[in-house]
Amino acid sequence: MNQNPYQKEGERIDDLHRKGYQILQDPDTFCFGIDAVLLADFACPRPKEKVLDLGTGSGILPLLMHARQPEARYYGLEIQPEMAERASRSVRMNGLEEQITITCGDLRQILSLYPGQSMDVVVSNPPYMPAGSGLKNETEARTIARHEVSCTIEDVAAAAARVLKSKGRLYLVHRPSRLTAVFGALTRHHLEPKRLRFVQPYADTAPTMMLIEAVLQGGAELKTAPPLIVYEAPGKYTQEVLRIYGMETQDQGVL
Amino acid sequence: MNQNPYQKEGERIDDLHRKGYQILQDPDTFCFGIDAVLLADFACPRPKEKVLDLGTGSGILPLLMHARQPEARYYGLEIQPEMAERASRSVRMNGLEEQITITCGDLRQILSLYPGQSMDVVVSNPPYMPAGSGLKNETEARTIARHEVSCTIEDVAAAAARVLKSKGRLYLVHRPSRLTAVFGALTRHHLEPKRLRFVQPYADTAPTMMLIEAVLQGGAELKTAPPLIVYEAPGKYTQEVLRIYGMETQDQGVL
Repeated sequence: MNQNPYQKEGERIDDLHRKGYQILQDPDTFCFGIDAVLLADFACPRPKEKVLDLGTGSGILPLLMHARQPEARYYGLEIQPEMAERASRSVRMNGLEEQITITCGDLRQILSLYPGQSMDVVVSNPPYMPAGSGLKNETEARTIARHEVSCTIEDVAAAAARVLKSKGRLYLVHRPSRLTAVFGALTRHHLEPKRLRFVQPYADTAPTMMLIEAVLQGGAELKTAPPLIVYEAPGKYTQEVLRIYGMETQDQGVL
Repeated sequence: MNQNPYQKEGERIDDLHRKGYQILQDPDTFCFGIDAVLLADFACPRPKEKVLDLGTGSGILPLLMHARQPEARYYGLEIQPEMAERASRSVRMNGLEEQITITCGDLRQILSLYPGQSMDVVVSNPPYMPAGSGLKNETEARTIARHEVSCTIEDVAAAAARVLKSKGRLYLVHRPSRLTAVFGALTRHHLEPKRLRFVQPYADTAPTMMLIEAVLQGGAELKTAPPLIVYEAPGKYTQEVLRIYGMETQDQGVL
């Protein structure tokens, strides 16, 4: 029996382990993963800043970032109407409609949705895979979230460059295999990469994700951070990952 | 008293710990470091391939690579006459004049020195720092080796693209802080980055070097390798670094 007035049939409610916040997700389409959690921690808005999430999906990034920095103002843009509607319900379910605004729209028409140079920070967990690559027997919602069919990294960079103020920051998570394309797109749109951090399952394994900070019209100087290592040993998270998930010890919850 | 007929005043002779090879170096100008040793290991020419080192300095890369792959043919280009002459003497001292040819010349005029599309592999340990940055109270030889005064990464990429055959490979070592510039220069010259490996002092510290393989007219797919970690603990090299230096245990020599 459905007890929560915000929850629809087929949706599940997950606890974010932060201030009691919860999120609605449809397990048949796309659920947030560690990439969103790491990006929310990597991006660091300051009080009063305006923060836009390009391709917000379930709204996970604004929710996690608001839990960490409640004094910034968050906006989430999502192209899929059903996902945008669900994200709005999650925002209302947490009583955050004054702090987080979800909009349904296409980031390729960004200036019809937000004023130019209006944002201090843009974040995005964009589709990782080029259109046409990988498996295609997925739902449309999942394909749009994972493949560059509705937006490419070039579109994300172009949109960010249009809405960011000069010296505004873009925070991205992406796959290391796309590094050349990502850095190329950023620099073509005057978004200078300033910080790069690889995420590795173990200290001695290849990175599976990368976190990038770029600054609009920034100077050329990239800082590469130590890798973010997920596991100390099989089944045992590193202290840093436990801290990011808001758990001080292994037994406070499941990741 | 100077016993070695190849050695000039002020030069020292270092053992390369490989097949008895030795190298002449002038400690007042520039001596090879771990970056050259790691690059020589990262680059892997096949038998019969033609390999050009852009900015060969003391000739360290052709010497180390020849020790590992004696069936390739090596060429070293060096702009500084004194260094090129010393590298030639090192080659003769090791009896390798049939296998390694050192040329004094400017890589910005590469096609006056080597035929276009003639090389299978290009390697380079180029100057890491932009011209005008960092300390300037150095000898001229050291400045040319460390700063982009005689060649920029753009010049290195342009030269490599001119002499490489289609699908030929370029192997570079550089600083992670220059990643954006390096990847930008490579892609502008149709050298697609295919492999990237960060080098870190320890498993949990930021990378200090990066090793890159790029392929001329290659497809877009970058593989990022696990980091190459230098120390297991202070003063204790990792097994991988000991293997690269040709030492099976810590006590077989000093790095």
